Amino acid sequence: MTVITELDTPAVLIDLDRAEANLRKAQAFADGAGLKLRPHIKTHKLPRFAQAAIDLGAVGITVQKLGEAEVMADAGITDMLLTFNIIGAAKLQRLRALNERVTIRVVADSAECVAGLSATFAGGKPLGVLVECDTGMGRCGVQSPGAALALAQTIIASPGLEFFGLMTYPAAGKYKAAAQWLAEAKALFEASGIAVPIITTGGTPDIWHADEAGVATEYRPGTYIYMDRSQVAAGAASYDDCALTVLATVVSHPTPGRAIIDAGSKALTSDLLGLVGHGYIPAYPDAKIVGLSEEHGTLDVSGCADGGPVIGEQIAIIPNHCCPVTNLFDHVHLVRGGQLVETVAVAARGRVD
Amino acid sequence: MTVITELDTPAVLIDLDRAEANLRKAQAFADGAGLKLRPHIKTHKLPRFAQAAIDLGAVGITVQKLGEAEVMADAGITDMLLTFNIIGAAKLQRLRALNERVTIRVVADSAECVAGLSATFAGGKPLGVLVECDTGMGRCGVQSPGAALALAQTIIASPGLEFFGLMTYPAAGKYKAAAQWLAEAKALFEASGIAVPIITTGGTPDIWHADEAGVATEYRPGTYIYMDRSQVAAGAASYDDCALTVLATVVSHPTPGRAIIDAGSKALTSDLLGLVGHGYIPAYPDAKIVGLSEEHGTLDVSGCADGGPVIGEQIAIIPNHCCPVTNLFDHVHLVRGGQLVETVAVAARGRVD
Repeated sequence: MTVITELDTPAVLIDLDRAEANLRKAQAFADGAGLKLRPHIKTHKLPRFAQAAIDLGAVGITVQKLGEAEVMADAGITDMLLTFNIIGAAKLQRLRALNERVTIRVVADSAECVAGLSATFAGGKPLGVLVECDTGMGRCGVQSPGAALALAQTIIASPGLEFFGLMTYPAAGKYKAAAQWLAEAKALFEASGIAVPIITTGGTPDIWHADEAGVATEYRPGTYIYMDRSQVAAGAASYDDCALTVLATVVSHPTPGRAIIDAGSKALTSDLLGLVGHGYIPAYPDAKIVGLSEEHGTLDVSGCADGGPVIGEQIAIIPNHCCPVTNLFDHVHLVRGGQLVETVAVAARGRVD
Repeated sequence: MTVITELDTPAVLIDLDRAEANLRKAQAFADGAGLKLRPHIKTHKLPRFAQAAIDLGAVGITVQKLGEAEVMADAGITDMLLTFNIIGAAKLQRLRALNERVTIRVVADSAECVAGLSATFAGGKPLGVLVECDTGMGRCGVQSPGAALALAQTIIASPGLEFFGLMTYPAAGKYKAAAQWLAEAKALFEASGIAVPIITTGGTPDIWHADEAGVATEYRPGTYIYMDRSQVAAGAASYDDCALTVLATVVSHPTPGRAIIDAGSKALTSDLLGLVGHGYIPAYPDAKIVGLSEEHGTLDVSGCADGGPVIGEQIAIIPNHCCPVTNLFDHVHLVRGGQLVETVAVAARGRVD
């Protein structure tokens, strides 16, 4: 077996024990809360982890891009929710092809989007559509329960489409507002005699409040499999839960207080997510990653009692945000007990469209 | 020919007329300043543009990673400078293999780095090494002209290595300080009887001040081929010079003032480079890209007199920083006069190590 210190850097390491524990913990929590789990694969982009979550009890997966859905369908995943408005002729034809071979449902938040879906699916195998609801995130989504009802009625009246429910991605920390929004919407739908088979919400930051998701039937966490520094900051994880690290090498130490590593924004991304600095180094908790160029990371090691890492030393970094990190690497290294188990291609990496 | 509005989005478009004009303009300016040009390929990662710059008069290319050097060597580029400290057994062996087939020189800023290089190259084909100098960037590099001289003397005394000169990446706007630093170093080297064949500096932000680079013999711009919003902010380009755009589609318009596009941080990156917002939209100069999720971009279109783009409309975005954008896409689309000429794989994309 290869010990991980023999890997060329920068490299992404996935601690399998931690990732598997994170999958199990979330499934158990969802079971306890009476929620179905539909994990988002954007974080790992690996069919094996999509399947692992399903084997533990997940009802299917969530994808954000058609390209991700195509990779997962090719790998044998048969039930997915695509939480993105599909717009334009090219994408609609790809969606139609996917709908012929797997169960795939999508969201819509406008009459324009619904019209495109209906024109594509009329006369063929029907497509399941959920109404995306803006419950506080300020991104996509209809703006009120009444608007959700109106769009659902449009979907119901549209050839080729079947209304399947409501979807939201709540703003972090605003799960109570989201729950209230969805409860009002469900009451409105019921008063109108429209069944709402699925009410799906999500987000790793508030995953341990999923039991307070009210009328929701389904939860869609993504980051939970790996966790990261932003999730630790949100209180959703500890550093000991973090399964993904970026292994880097100290390549320069120009001053006593400054060390330079070979991981910059092309390895760690520039995502700050409200944090200061660009990652956490468990072996040197007093070292700060104060700056990133594309291929260099600048460490302030002036606070390290032992002087910090030396030139040539490899250090593992918990990034601010693990999801875009896996999108930068063609391969990740699966590790157990400090030993390399397998190096795998990130199958859905770069599936941007 | 395909008109670009038929492309699936998000997609990267390269305007060939603009890119070629940028290459020509920089070469002419360097010629006028008596400087050799050694363009950095990190921006485009394409052998064809590396070769195009050489055909115009560049003396070779600059690369930041061994993986980039390997791709360029495979494509027939024969002269390159790797501006990164090479540390560790795996990388040293790859560097040795490269040195057997092309002219490749590297930098070093520490005795540890030089020792590793010497141990690898002693007894074989010698390796050319430049001393990296920190002239104000605060990243890698020796801290004083005296330290540069001392390290050069170490290189000269090290079997397998040949001292080739000084390299710096100056902080943007600090080209005068860098020029003074290098002039002092050159005087010190001359007083010690040590020739300095190459003094290489770089950076697109100050490229039109390259004629003020003093004792420098060589300039290494990267971003200049595509330019971007950060270079416009730095005064190095106008928006009409920007050759790279990210084509995105409006997928949602949840409120009159908010539009959502299908390009988020996985297309535009989170790089701010001191700017506010995440890009510039030439067709809608009053639209602001106020937020990015991984796959969504949020536009504030409240300032658009005409209401801004509608659902389904494709818009081209000049990103804050073009270099990491090309690192996110497997392919870019080469365009001339609004027509798609060719879609090419980004050969050195993701060559992180």
